[in-house]
Amino acid sequence: MSVKPVLINGEWKNSSGPQTFHAFNPATKEQLPEEFPVSPWTEIDEAVQSAAKAAEVVRSWPGSRFADFLRKYADLIEQRADALVKAAHAETALPVSPRLKDGELPRTTGQLRQAADAAESESWREATIDTANGIRAMYGPLGPVVVFGPNNFPFAFNGISGGDFAAAVAAGNPVIGKGHSSHPETSRLFAEAAHQAAQETAMPPGFVQMIYRTNHEDGAKLVSHPLMGGCGYTGGRHAGLVIKEAADKAGKPVYLELSSINPVCLLPGALKERGDEIAADFASSCLMGTGQFCTNPGIVLLLAGEATDQFIEATVGKFQAAAVGTLLSGGAQKGLTEGIITLQSAGADLLTGGEAGGGDGYCVKNTLLKVSALDFLANPGKLQTEVFGNASLYIIANSAKELKQVIRTFEGNLTGCIYSQSEGEDDSLYDQVAPLLRQKVGRLLNDKMPTGVAVSPAMNHGGPFPATGHPMFTSVGIPASIKRFSMLQCFDNVRPHRLPAVLQDNNSIKDCWRLIDGKWSQKSVGE
Amino acid sequence: MSVKPVLINGEWKNSSGPQTFHAFNPATKEQLPEEFPVSPWTEIDEAVQSAAKAAEVVRSWPGSRFADFLRKYADLIEQRADALVKAAHAETALPVSPRLKDGELPRTTGQLRQAADAAESESWREATIDTANGIRAMYGPLGPVVVFGPNNFPFAFNGISGGDFAAAVAAGNPVIGKGHSSHPETSRLFAEAAHQAAQETAMPPGFVQMIYRTNHEDGAKLVSHPLMGGCGYTGGRHAGLVIKEAADKAGKPVYLELSSINPVCLLPGALKERGDEIAADFASSCLMGTGQFCTNPGIVLLLAGEATDQFIEATVGKFQAAAVGTLLSGGAQKGLTEGIITLQSAGADLLTGGEAGGGDGYCVKNTLLKVSALDFLANPGKLQTEVFGNASLYIIANSAKELKQVIRTFEGNLTGCIYSQSEGEDDSLYDQVAPLLRQKVGRLLNDKMPTGVAVSPAMNHGGPFPATGHPMFTSVGIPASIKRFSMLQCFDNVRPHRLPAVLQDNNSIKDCWRLIDGKWSQKSVGE
Repeated sequence: MSVKPVLINGEWKNSSGPQTFHAFNPATKEQLPEEFPVSPWTEIDEAVQSAAKAAEVVRSWPGSRFADFLRKYADLIEQRADALVKAAHAETALPVSPRLKDGELPRTTGQLRQAADAAESESWREATIDTANGIRAMYGPLGPVVVFGPNNFPFAFNGISGGDFAAAVAAGNPVIGKGHSSHPETSRLFAEAAHQAAQETAMPPGFVQMIYRTNHEDGAKLVSHPLMGGCGYTGGRHAGLVIKEAADKAGKPVYLELSSINPVCLLPGALKERGDEIAADFASSCLMGTGQFCTNPGIVLLLAGEATDQFIEATVGKFQAAAVGTLLSGGAQKGLTEGIITLQSAGADLLTGGEAGGGDGYCVKNTLLKVSALDFLANPGKLQTEVFGNASLYIIANSAKELKQVIRTFEGNLTGCIYSQSEGEDDSLYDQVAPLLRQKVGRLLNDKMPTGVAVSPAMNHGGPFPATGHPMFTSVGIPASIKRFSMLQCFDNVRPHRLPAVLQDNNSIKDCWRLIDGKWSQKSVGE
Repeated sequence: MSVKPVLINGEWKNSSGPQTFHAFNPATKEQLPEEFPVSPWTEIDEAVQSAAKAAEVVRSWPGSRFADFLRKYADLIEQRADALVKAAHAETALPVSPRLKDGELPRTTGQLRQAADAAESESWREATIDTANGIRAMYGPLGPVVVFGPNNFPFAFNGISGGDFAAAVAAGNPVIGKGHSSHPETSRLFAEAAHQAAQETAMPPGFVQMIYRTNHEDGAKLVSHPLMGGCGYTGGRHAGLVIKEAADKAGKPVYLELSSINPVCLLPGALKERGDEIAADFASSCLMGTGQFCTNPGIVLLLAGEATDQFIEATVGKFQAAAVGTLLSGGAQKGLTEGIITLQSAGADLLTGGEAGGGDGYCVKNTLLKVSALDFLANPGKLQTEVFGNASLYIIANSAKELKQVIRTFEGNLTGCIYSQSEGEDDSLYDQVAPLLRQKVGRLLNDKMPTGVAVSPAMNHGGPFPATGHPMFTSVGIPASIKRFSMLQCFDNVRPHRLPAVLQDNNSIKDCWRLIDGKWSQKSVGE
């Protein structure tokens, strides 16, 4: 079987690199037939040069052009849904239904269409007009963007179809998609659809490009290339920090999602009131997708007591009774088992699970661990190791003071949840805990598990380092996610006819919100 | 004379460090009498601990509390205007009038009051309400901020009174001001006023703190301290990159303004039409404040021809005729003369000036250099050395193609200007040049020199690296500058009475704009 081509400069080309790789089916541990290339630097540089040319071509285009592409692409993805679902299932073992077919695929096309709407209305640009000073500003395109997708969402976060891709395109940037090495065929099918959509909507050759794999050194060179505008990365912390260091050094914006253990704080009144319900919520949230969500509840904070004992007993039962899901790869199994050992070596006790097996292919038994708050506080770094998968750690505090001390040691996280009694019994404790947790997380939840990330303008799928690289940005939620791939562009005394349409006196763009002399408006200047 | 105390944890304390330093009067080269401490790490750490405590106290306060402080502080600065102007004049040699007294001081209090208004209205938080999903988000405070101020604006960019300070406070953050070592007495006087304002408006002890100097290692430790929220830095590129590397590694937001040569492109029709006027504009812009502005026009791009020859001749005359201003320090004189030598060694010819002297104290003769576009393209890195002061480099292109090639090699800059003929004679050249320059600069100007930075919501005093650390942010202009010192905070299913006021259904904050279900509004939800 011949090596699959890369998509560079508007053409499917045979890679010039000698190295190749295969994906594996995690449910059978068998190698899949398709062979993919590791792209050498010359090839990557060719993609960058082509993307930079495309950026010059599209830089002043109206948002509607990018909307056309995004909508066409969403349509073509739907036409190829069966093939995409089949490939992704083979490469990730994620269930066809409800996950891939009915969940992630519609979410992915939905994101692309939301991004299209935002690109068309141009409200995301936050056009700001100061008529007295003759100064106008907006967010404009950043330049070529490379997107590294993770393995756990082969559709919705894929480098060539996911949220970062949609956001970077909506901002008017060419994208080089870097497929995840564990699902290259899925990525290739997306790239075929993206390429066709680009041709049908007359985008320039380097607007959408696709490579499957690079070595680490070339990845770092890519994100720091002088012609690149910026980078989106979702994945493991170690590789992400290599990318971050290279991009930071070159002064290139880099948006990362690295790791998160998503603390859940169950206050005693809530457990007394509805412990069974919360136990069911938690088990379902932690085991869903074999726990392989960025927002998986990896730490549960509890106050010692009878209700807590009952909660632990109930959840241990549920974890033992639940089917053991397949993990995304051999690497995921290795990472999970090693992570569990790390927690134990740092003082956590195993309540259930902890060993490989119990299901199909790569898998680890559903796992719960426990540690006292005092032991946690003795080794908070190691005990915050992200254990990615169907596992969680209970931290048992003896007092509100211990609970707060634990929260103070937390690293940055995407989410933090607090469950409290519905009549206000826990409110004084809530008032102590919530402000501390608030500063450590991007999204604070009440009475709700963190898995489930709505594509909402008010969503924050982000948070303080090391959850992400910068606490001001979200990778989910439009239009906020689009702004990441932009630069602020001020026009000072620029002649009116030379201004971008969105900054001209007459508001010719449908539904576009602009900040005119301090007031948000959809009208024209002076209207 | 005793060593001046530092302001830590709400008290003026004697520094525990053994090292001290003095400032110098740049006009006389004489040491000034006041002695200031270099703060050791224990003292800096004490400030961080105190700031973190203050952050916990003020984190949920309404914006009006920060507005009260900022307004009181502005009032107290005005009361102490004479002493501030006197100290700054002695430490920087900047003219008392019109610069310090009538220009920079009112600008500084104006910024503080604009920031107060923004803090009070809370519109800067961009409260976003999604009623259907029960999700709400806003920008909230980041945590303690350290601000490093530059030497060239002892008031308007001072670490304890300038734009970054005002923005960080308006966002609800305690600030540790790091005074510039060349104007410590000016900074001390500000800190006295800030401390009094903090006491009179009942801010917690660590809300405003002041240190004068640290060693480089401790500066890096400070910006990467786990309890710090972020950092603002304006100053030289070398020290800034040390700060950036430390902050980046720790995942702390860092906002830098590092260097900019602000290319000005004079198209031939404009020179033919109004060459004398442009020559006067340019000379005035380049020599104002002895050229020590971040937006000083350090490069002028010209097409070879008679009008260009006349422009060069006219400006050489003006530079020779103009008084030579005093530079900010001996270091500034050294940097400027060395920079001029660097440009010459890279192929530039000296047209006038180039040597120290010609005025009072530290000074260098008004300087112009010239290089052909071809020679520039042979060494674009060295020929973009920032030569901070009363000097500029002409680049002479023989064709539009060369002009564009030169622009393609530019690093990121704060500003870029294009002068063109008023009837459209230059328009086809403008259309080729402007899109290239647009991507390289934060602010694009027409027919106007870059010095003069209005405090406008539409201003961008920012730009691609290395002008700043991130092209999405401006350090001048409210409310955009405030957002830098914030994090995105999402509230998912949080019980209504627990939401911050700005996210509750009822809009209780005067003039506050919120994005409710996709529409900007000052009303309450459902109103």
